[in-house]
Amino acid sequence: MSKSNVIKIGLCGFGTVGQGVWKHLQRTKGEMEARLGVRLELARVAVRDPRRKRAVRLPASKLTTDAMAVACDPAIGIVCELMGGTDLARQVTLAALREGKVVVSANKALISAHGAEIFATARKHGGHFFFEASVAGGIPIIKALREGLVANRFPCIYGILNGTCNYILTQMEELDAPYDCVLAEAKQLGYAEADEALDVQGWDAAHKAAVLAWLAHGRWVDPKHMIVEGIDRITPADFKNAATLGYGIKLLAIIVRDFATDELSVRVHPTLLPEGNVIANVNGVYNAISVTGDVVGTTLYIGRGAGQDATASAVISDIADAAALLRHGKNLHLTSEVAPLPAGGVKLAPLERIRGCYYLRLTVRDQPGVLARIASVMARHHVSIASVIQNASETDGTASLVLTTHESNERAMQTTLRDVSRLASVVDRPLLLRIGEFSE
Amino acid sequence: MSKSNVIKIGLCGFGTVGQGVWKHLQRTKGEMEARLGVRLELARVAVRDPRRKRAVRLPASKLTTDAMAVACDPAIGIVCELMGGTDLARQVTLAALREGKVVVSANKALISAHGAEIFATARKHGGHFFFEASVAGGIPIIKALREGLVANRFPCIYGILNGTCNYILTQMEELDAPYDCVLAEAKQLGYAEADEALDVQGWDAAHKAAVLAWLAHGRWVDPKHMIVEGIDRITPADFKNAATLGYGIKLLAIIVRDFATDELSVRVHPTLLPEGNVIANVNGVYNAISVTGDVVGTTLYIGRGAGQDATASAVISDIADAAALLRHGKNLHLTSEVAPLPAGGVKLAPLERIRGCYYLRLTVRDQPGVLARIASVMARHHVSIASVIQNASETDGTASLVLTTHESNERAMQTTLRDVSRLASVVDRPLLLRIGEFSE
Repeated sequence: MSKSNVIKIGLCGFGTVGQGVWKHLQRTKGEMEARLGVRLELARVAVRDPRRKRAVRLPASKLTTDAMAVACDPAIGIVCELMGGTDLARQVTLAALREGKVVVSANKALISAHGAEIFATARKHGGHFFFEASVAGGIPIIKALREGLVANRFPCIYGILNGTCNYILTQMEELDAPYDCVLAEAKQLGYAEADEALDVQGWDAAHKAAVLAWLAHGRWVDPKHMIVEGIDRITPADFKNAATLGYGIKLLAIIVRDFATDELSVRVHPTLLPEGNVIANVNGVYNAISVTGDVVGTTLYIGRGAGQDATASAVISDIADAAALLRHGKNLHLTSEVAPLPAGGVKLAPLERIRGCYYLRLTVRDQPGVLARIASVMARHHVSIASVIQNASETDGTASLVLTTHESNERAMQTTLRDVSRLASVVDRPLLLRIGEFSE
Repeated sequence: MSKSNVIKIGLCGFGTVGQGVWKHLQRTKGEMEARLGVRLELARVAVRDPRRKRAVRLPASKLTTDAMAVACDPAIGIVCELMGGTDLARQVTLAALREGKVVVSANKALISAHGAEIFATARKHGGHFFFEASVAGGIPIIKALREGLVANRFPCIYGILNGTCNYILTQMEELDAPYDCVLAEAKQLGYAEADEALDVQGWDAAHKAAVLAWLAHGRWVDPKHMIVEGIDRITPADFKNAATLGYGIKLLAIIVRDFATDELSVRVHPTLLPEGNVIANVNGVYNAISVTGDVVGTTLYIGRGAGQDATASAVISDIADAAALLRHGKNLHLTSEVAPLPAGGVKLAPLERIRGCYYLRLTVRDQPGVLARIASVMARHHVSIASVIQNASETDGTASLVLTTHESNERAMQTTLRDVSRLASVVDRPLLLRIGEFSE
C-alpha cells in the first residue's frame, strides 16, 4: 500500500470534528491530490450508532461500529482517531501504530495521559503519530514548535489554550455578568460542553500544556504535578479590581524553563495580564500562544482554538503530512517528527522557585484590626504587600479586601493562603490569582 | 552523499545573516543532530573579502572567494545563499539546484524576480529550494501557509512585512517626530540600511508579498503590477488625524482574492487600521501577518521580522528540513514542498475592483470656495466624502485639509487624485492613504 498512489483514510469517531474533517476533505481533496501527487480515499468510518442522524451524511457502506477493525484494516494507511476519551481511543491508536500506520489525533487528554506509551509504540513498530489538532485548534503551533523553531530552546511559552474559558471570561468582563449566567449561556450556544468541568477547572488546558511542554522540553509532566486552577471562582468584581490595577484576566497555561538550573514549571491558572499585552486583548473563543525562543525571540500565534472547522483544518494538515510520508514508504522519518529535545536533567521546579506577584481577594468582617492581622500573617511568610483595595462594606457586615503583593513565590503564597484562611475575621475562602509579567 | 549520515553545508555570503546562522548552528548542532539522526558539517563559506574583520570568526581553511565553487562542490548537500542581490545569487542558486542540491535562501528580491525560473530548475533537476527566512524573519509563516493551513484557500492575507518601516512609523507616532529625523536615527541604530529606498518605498514588502501570493494562489505577481507606495510622505500630523478618526497607520502588504470572480490583488501601502485591530498595536521592528483561510478562519502570526538572530532561526529550520530530506535521498518530495495551489484562471483585479475607503490630505490656499471645488471634483468621480478635518491655517496662507471617503475604488480615487492635484487652490502634492477594515 505504501508504494501505491492511493492512500486510504479511516475515521474513528464521526462527531463534530469527524464530520468537519469529512466535509472539508471532500471539498479540498482534488486540490490536495494535485499538490501532493497522491489520491486520497475516505475508506471507512467507525461510529457508535450508525442510525443516528448527522448533519453530514455518509454512504451507509462506509459505516461500521467497529473502530478496532478500522485501526487494523490493512488497506487503510491513515487512521484519524477523533472519538475522544482515553480507553477505546488508546486501544485504537496503539493497534494502528503496531500495524505501522499513521495515526492522526486531536485527543489531548489521550496524549497527556499516554503520550510516552504512544510514541514508544510508534517508534517500535514504524508507526507515526501526528497531533496538530490537539493543541490550539487551527493554529499550527505543533509544527511551529518542532519544525519552524527547531533552532531554539524555549525559556517561556504561555498562552490561552482553552476557548471555552476565554469566551466565558470575555463575556463576564464585557457584560459585567456573573460566572454562572455566562456559563449557562455558553452551554446554550454550544461553546461549553454539558459537563463543563474539564474546561473551566483548567484540566483541558493542562493536557494541552503537557503536550507543549513535552515538545519543547522532552519531558511528560503529569497534570497532577502542575498547579492547575480554574475560572469558576472569578467574579465580575475581580475584573473591576484588575482593571483598576491595569490588568485583564485570562486563563493561561505557562511553561517556564530555567536553563541555568534546568528547572521546569508547567501550570494553568487565571492570570492578571497587563492591559497592553497583546494576549490580554485576545477575546472570545480565540486561543493565543506566546513562544519565546533563545534565538528567534518572542513569536505569537493567535487563532480559533476549537470548533469543527478550525480543528478540521489542523487534522487535514496532518493528513497531508501523512500522505506525503506514505507516498514515499512508511519507514521514512519526516522533519515533522523530529524527536523532542532530550529531557536530560530537566526536573520540576520546586514551589519556592516559581516566583511572581499575586492578587489575593478576601471577604472579611468589616471591623478594626482585620487588615493588621492579615498583614502580619503575610509578613510572617515574607510576603510584601504592594497595594490594597478595600471595597465598600456589604449589608451583612463583611467587606471585600484585595491585596496585591511584590514578588513572592508559590510556597510562600500557599502557606500564606492557608494561614489567612484560618483567621476568624476571614469569612469566605480567599481567591488567589497570579499576576503575569512577561517580557516581550 | 545523500545516503550518508554526514550532511555538508556550504554558506554563500557571511554578512549579518550568515554569521548568525554559523553562530547559532554551532551551538544547536549537537541537539539537532541527535533529533534528526544525521551529522551536520559546516564545510565551506564563500565571502567577497576573506581578510575582512568579522564578529564571528571562521577557520581560514573554510573560506573561499568562489561562491560558484561552493554551489557546485559535490560534497556539499545544502547551499545557503545568504549574499543578497539578484545576479550572483541567481547564478549560485541555479547552479546548486542543477546539481540536485537543496538551496536555502533568505533572498526575497531574488525569489520575487526569478521565482518561476528557480522552482522550474529545482523540479527539472531534482533540486530543492527552501525559503522560510525570506518572509517575516523568524515567524514560520511559509510553513504555516503551505503545510499547517494546507486545507485552506486564502481570501485575505495582510500584514506588516517590513520591520524598518514599522520601526520608523512607531517612532514617528510615539515621539511626534518627523520622518527624516526618525530615519536618520534608525540608520544610526542599524534598523535601516544606508540606502533605505528598498524598505521605505515599499519594495521590500512587495517582494515578500509576491512570495506569499505565489504560495497562496500559485501565481507570480510582479511588484511592477502591484500598487506599491511607501512611508516617506507621512507626517506626524497624519498620525494625529488618524488618531482623531480612531486609527493607527501601518505599512501593510495586502493580498486579496475573490474566489467568485477569481480576481487577485496584491498591494503594499500605508494603511489606516482601526485602533482595536491587533496588528495596529504591533510596534517597533516586529512583523505581523493575518491569514484568513476558508476553513480555519483568521489566524495571526507576530514576531521579529528581521535581524541576525530571527533570520538565522528561520534559515536553520530550513536546514533541518533539508537534512531530513537528504537523510532519505534527495529525490524525496516533502510536505514542505507541497506545490502551490494551481493558479488556474486567477487574474489580477482591475483597479475599479479594488474597493475601500480612503484618507486624502491636501495642502490648500486658505480661501473661500476651496472645499467646494474639491468636493465637486470628487463628486464627478462618484467619490463620497465621509468626514472633513480642516486644520488651522499656516502663516503662509495655506491650510491642511483631510477628507475621508465612503467606499470607493482605486480607479476612481486615482483619477480624483489627478484632478484634485490640478486645482489651482491645491498647493502641494496630495497624500492618499487607504483605510483598512478587515473582518476578524
